[in-house]
Amino acid sequence: MKKIRLDPGPFVLPMPVALIGAMVDDAPNFMPAAFVGIVNYEPVVVACGLNPRHHTATGISSNGTFSVNLPGADIVEATDWCGLHSGRQADKGDVFETFSGRLEYAPMIKACRLAAECRLVKTVEFPADTVYFGEVANVYVDEAALKDGAPDWPVIAPLLFTFPDKGYWKLGDRVAQAWSVGKGYRP
Amino acid sequence: MKKIRLDPGPFVLPMPVALIGAMVDDAPNFMPAAFVGIVNYEPVVVACGLNPRHHTATGISSNGTFSVNLPGADIVEATDWCGLHSGRQADKGDVFETFSGRLEYAPMIKACRLAAECRLVKTVEFPADTVYFGEVANVYVDEAALKDGAPDWPVIAPLLFTFPDKGYWKLGDRVAQAWSVGKGYRP
Repeated sequence: MKKIRLDPGPFVLPMPVALIGAMVDDAPNFMPAAFVGIVNYEPVVVACGLNPRHHTATGISSNGTFSVNLPGADIVEATDWCGLHSGRQADKGDVFETFSGRLEYAPMIKACRLAAECRLVKTVEFPADTVYFGEVANVYVDEAALKDGAPDWPVIAPLLFTFPDKGYWKLGDRVAQAWSVGKGYRP
Repeated sequence: MKKIRLDPGPFVLPMPVALIGAMVDDAPNFMPAAFVGIVNYEPVVVACGLNPRHHTATGISSNGTFSVNLPGADIVEATDWCGLHSGRQADKGDVFETFSGRLEYAPMIKACRLAAECRLVKTVEFPADTVYFGEVANVYVDEAALKDGAPDWPVIAPLLFTFPDKGYWKLGDRVAQAWSVGKGYRP
């Protein structure tokens, strides 16, 4: 198959859509972000690439804590609305019912079936975005979205994001088991 | 819905499965990784959380270049096999037909419908893994997987990964358009 060269685009995708939560001026604020993912296993560290001018980002820097919430298709309109409006102009405190975990200043969203509260452990600045590294302190999952005590991904049903088509997507069918399906393969 | 607290797990998921490519001792080497994602938009930077003892990781550090390749379900067995075997013991040069782009030492996989070649621009060490930040220099896409000159995600059909169930998954249905579907929402 002929390969076509493209100029650089953010095409290592899809990424999970995450609503990043932080307290700003004593109010919970949330923004959707797609440049969010795990980068370290032990301790669990999540990297969030955010423009530092975002209202949510100022809350992360001020408090040193934030949350990562995974919305599903059932709240896609509210999720997208949070990306269309800055917390500087719009009060986001009423969009979602929130709950607190064990950390201060890491508001989490009840309507998200999985949420994690994080401690900011490092930042790395790039020309456009700053990478906020959060060590995951605790994860909260809907009781109905657990199977044998672990996240049941078809029930959590996280939204995924692609670019440049700006698509929100569902998780599809399970293909195979990792560290297993390749055992019978011979190069 | 009742929330259950879990100890930290790498649950900001799913993540795309990526085959990371590097030259080691003049041979192409590939390893599947899931802790890989975009963290900066301009320039495009991809963060890869890899254990630095991996054979592929030594190639990244030595050459300062690497590739990120997105496998689909059609090559899930070969992808998984690369994760079950180290390049120190197994010759991975014969697993995939490769091609070169404009950078040296960034072998890419023909069977992956999307591949990116990257320059290593920074590393950040965490206790388990090292985060390798790569600036994307060029992206290569199968001609048939482009729509209007951009990646057509249902055709690229990247594999996704979840934990702790160790699942490989397909991309599912498109839900909505970002920066759009929330326009009619009112909190």
